[in-house]
Amino acid sequence: MTLTPNVTPTYVTPTELTDSADGPDFTICTLLRSQEKYDRLLGSFLRNGFTAANSEFLAADNRDANRFDGYSWHKALLAQAKGRCVIFCHDDIELLEAGRAELLAALAELDRTDPHWLLAGVAGGRYRPRKHHRRLLRLRISDPYGEDRVLGSVPGRVETLDECFIVMRRSRPVIGSYDLDGFHFYGPDLCLQAELLGGSAHVIDFHLRHHGGGTKDQSFEEARERFVRKYAPLFPGRHLHCTTGVVHLVPPEAKEGG
Amino acid sequence: MTLTPNVTPTYVTPTELTDSADGPDFTICTLLRSQEKYDRLLGSFLRNGFTAANSEFLAADNRDANRFDGYSWHKALLAQAKGRCVIFCHDDIELLEAGRAELLAALAELDRTDPHWLLAGVAGGRYRPRKHHRRLLRLRISDPYGEDRVLGSVPGRVETLDECFIVMRRSRPVIGSYDLDGFHFYGPDLCLQAELLGGSAHVIDFHLRHHGGGTKDQSFEEARERFVRKYAPLFPGRHLHCTTGVVHLVPPEAKEGG
Repeated sequence: MTLTPNVTPTYVTPTELTDSADGPDFTICTLLRSQEKYDRLLGSFLRNGFTAANSEFLAADNRDANRFDGYSWHKALLAQAKGRCVIFCHDDIELLEAGRAELLAALAELDRTDPHWLLAGVAGGRYRPRKHHRRLLRLRISDPYGEDRVLGSVPGRVETLDECFIVMRRSRPVIGSYDLDGFHFYGPDLCLQAELLGGSAHVIDFHLRHHGGGTKDQSFEEARERFVRKYAPLFPGRHLHCTTGVVHLVPPEAKEGG
Repeated sequence: MTLTPNVTPTYVTPTELTDSADGPDFTICTLLRSQEKYDRLLGSFLRNGFTAANSEFLAADNRDANRFDGYSWHKALLAQAKGRCVIFCHDDIELLEAGRAELLAALAELDRTDPHWLLAGVAGGRYRPRKHHRRLLRLRISDPYGEDRVLGSVPGRVETLDECFIVMRRSRPVIGSYDLDGFHFYGPDLCLQAELLGGSAHVIDFHLRHHGGGTKDQSFEEARERFVRKYAPLFPGRHLHCTTGVVHLVPPEAKEGG
């Protein structure tokens, strides 16, 4: 005879999860290096409909030192996030006129057009482009390269996303690689992991400003080599279009051989 | 000039996450069909060191109907879990003498021997076995096939895990496929996703009883076909050893051709 155990389990049903009453709509996760930039980011979110009532703000604290890298900060903050939608963004972005309402509308459209979406961003490489495609990137963004730039057709499916702004749903997460590190390629890595999970990544029409222009230092080339070494065996011969340039997924041995 | 925003962000550092004071040690997630079996499971956990103080119990509620399938229940419960270690188990397992202390010791050993571990279970297929390997499975378990059965060398790395008992750390999660469904192959799927993420899966020495023996109905063959269709292009030619048998990752076109 089984005694009634002295514990109260939580019985979970799918409905409770998707329309959970507790928890905010959004968790805004930021890779934080500069408090000044972060204050600008926070001000722009608060001006555009994200409030303490509907949003939670988490910052991966790299102010004094690089405690987190691009691959670790997503995982660490996702484990703490309570929001239904989780935004991962750099501290040097700033919302313009588009805010909470526009983001919810763009994500609702994505729900309709591609229920299998896992990631949404503002800039990325067109999904498996063909030769007749003239535009290899999709984006709508203001950045050091121009005001309200639009490339490709937006919204649309992509195979890579720029790390400056990426959204996922907490109930349908995507985890980045554990065998890559550093500050490069973690957006493309996340998109390929989403693809391996059987879902998709999209650029949505959500106009914001990215004050940074991206840096390519010595570590960029090393990161690209490790990225290629990991993914070339899985997607041999694929050309992956990133906002930082094209990556050829050719295994090292194939390169050496010819 | 930036106004101080009317919001209090949470500044996260890695240390706070790994040694978090709040949250239980364990979240025990169960795919629940039978209340009677679940009460037996709960009783066995409570007898073996898992208490309401150090553990949280979540049940994916399939008592009345299949609200969750094998692929959806992990995601749904992981999104609610607050424990540092998350156990996913069937309702028909029962702990014997090994309990919380033994599990913590086995996981601590894994931390030492393979810091890249992502999944730990009690039965699975040896990782990429070679022809001279006589044992293709690793397990220590009591089940309808025998008392305290041991196969292969335990602990050890595996490429698949039986779904009856799988542990992960919440700060280093693994997500199962979004493009597979049903109740078969979600353990092997999780292991392959762990491998694609750059981590490993292991069988640990944690003796428990699995009252179920597994069922192979019509849906099993269909599930295997879909599993092969998904993974054969990623791991062409690989023979994957599961507790339910060997799966040959041969693309359909290769099969048809000869």
